[in-house]
Amino acid sequence: MTLKTKNQKPKTAVVLASGGLDSCVAAAVARREFDLAMFHANYGQRSLEQELEAFRAQAAFFQAAATLEVDLNYLGVIGGSCLTDLDQTVPTGEVEPPGIPSTYVPFRNTNLLAAAVAWAEVLGAEAVFIGANVLDNPGYPDCRPEYFEAFSRVLELGARPETHLVIHTPLIHLDKAGIVRLGLKLGAPLGLSWSCYQGDLRACGRCSSCRLRLKGFAAAGVPDPIPYQP
Amino acid sequence: MTLKTKNQKPKTAVVLASGGLDSCVAAAVARREFDLAMFHANYGQRSLEQELEAFRAQAAFFQAAATLEVDLNYLGVIGGSCLTDLDQTVPTGEVEPPGIPSTYVPFRNTNLLAAAVAWAEVLGAEAVFIGANVLDNPGYPDCRPEYFEAFSRVLELGARPETHLVIHTPLIHLDKAGIVRLGLKLGAPLGLSWSCYQGDLRACGRCSSCRLRLKGFAAAGVPDPIPYQP
Repeated sequence: MTLKTKNQKPKTAVVLASGGLDSCVAAAVARREFDLAMFHANYGQRSLEQELEAFRAQAAFFQAAATLEVDLNYLGVIGGSCLTDLDQTVPTGEVEPPGIPSTYVPFRNTNLLAAAVAWAEVLGAEAVFIGANVLDNPGYPDCRPEYFEAFSRVLELGARPETHLVIHTPLIHLDKAGIVRLGLKLGAPLGLSWSCYQGDLRACGRCSSCRLRLKGFAAAGVPDPIPYQP
Repeated sequence: MTLKTKNQKPKTAVVLASGGLDSCVAAAVARREFDLAMFHANYGQRSLEQELEAFRAQAAFFQAAATLEVDLNYLGVIGGSCLTDLDQTVPTGEVEPPGIPSTYVPFRNTNLLAAAVAWAEVLGAEAVFIGANVLDNPGYPDCRPEYFEAFSRVLELGARPETHLVIHTPLIHLDKAGIVRLGLKLGAPLGLSWSCYQGDLRACGRCSSCRLRLKGFAAAGVPDPIPYQP
């Protein structure tokens, strides 16, 4: 029999938390086993202010043991994505053309994970959670299971030998409806999440991210708690 | 027979250039085949100003087609290294204790490579050069050949399928004397490089990086062209 005493040192997980729906549910999964160290990145995205507000509200909800907001705005300077380049438009068509979406931010997940792992290593955390999922985002190369397996090998070889961090992708095989259902089951604060790619005060309801979210709630048979533009 | 015409589109390589000796020589290797896009990062290191000055002087020398100076100062905020934490001291003993050196910056090379690859992807570059070498730095996990192999797999899986970037580590098996010799052979501007970990106007000659550099020049049988503190 294993006894868990009250003085047992809590385990910590770093959660990559954009403020969005997926990472909100990933945080709820992590919270079942870990104290949370919640990580947010500014990379020059249009919706930064809304994401930051959502991130902070979620961190308060989850009683995060630590938070870190980092500035990766060089990704915006580098460009190559409609999310950071204001001269490009965000797609609103329901069906995305095949190939890499224009919302792809070059090598974003590797940049996010690299920063989050550095923090996790200094904190002595045991896990890093990321809400990536592949079913609804088949065009993003850095959201696939094999990508995370490869990154785990870099982590194993590139960090201190005594660092034993595990990358968790609890949503990787869920679609948006499944993510909504899991979030509801775990009591995740879905109403505090922000998904819209645009930088307006209310979600647009038309960009590819809003459409995917609304479709997910509809398929799960529950209303989306956040307000949308009329 | 293959003819190279004047109108042939030049190939571009991104070079991770700290301003130091190793990356200066790596840039000289890259320059034989590529136009250079030179990348520098501020990560809160003590010697940032000296490194930046060296980086810019080297970029001018190599007639870099593009330069990018990015701010990764979250690495300094995260801490965990004597290079970024002013409460720690930089080691000056000639022999480092075994294990991970206190100059290890958590997961630094992955953070640097992630940013450099994002830029390379947007530029449409064909290669990324990094001056990492393992013989004189056996304690750094992210300077070993197997680490770069693992990172190459992340690059293959995490970037656009049409991105075919190769990570080059031309100095990986050279010691400092070998790096000095190669730099001299290629006409690298070694006098424009800065290695000292301290942030003083002249190199200290005592920190582990200065010692390694001076030993390398001595073993190569040439004087180090940069001035040192008396």
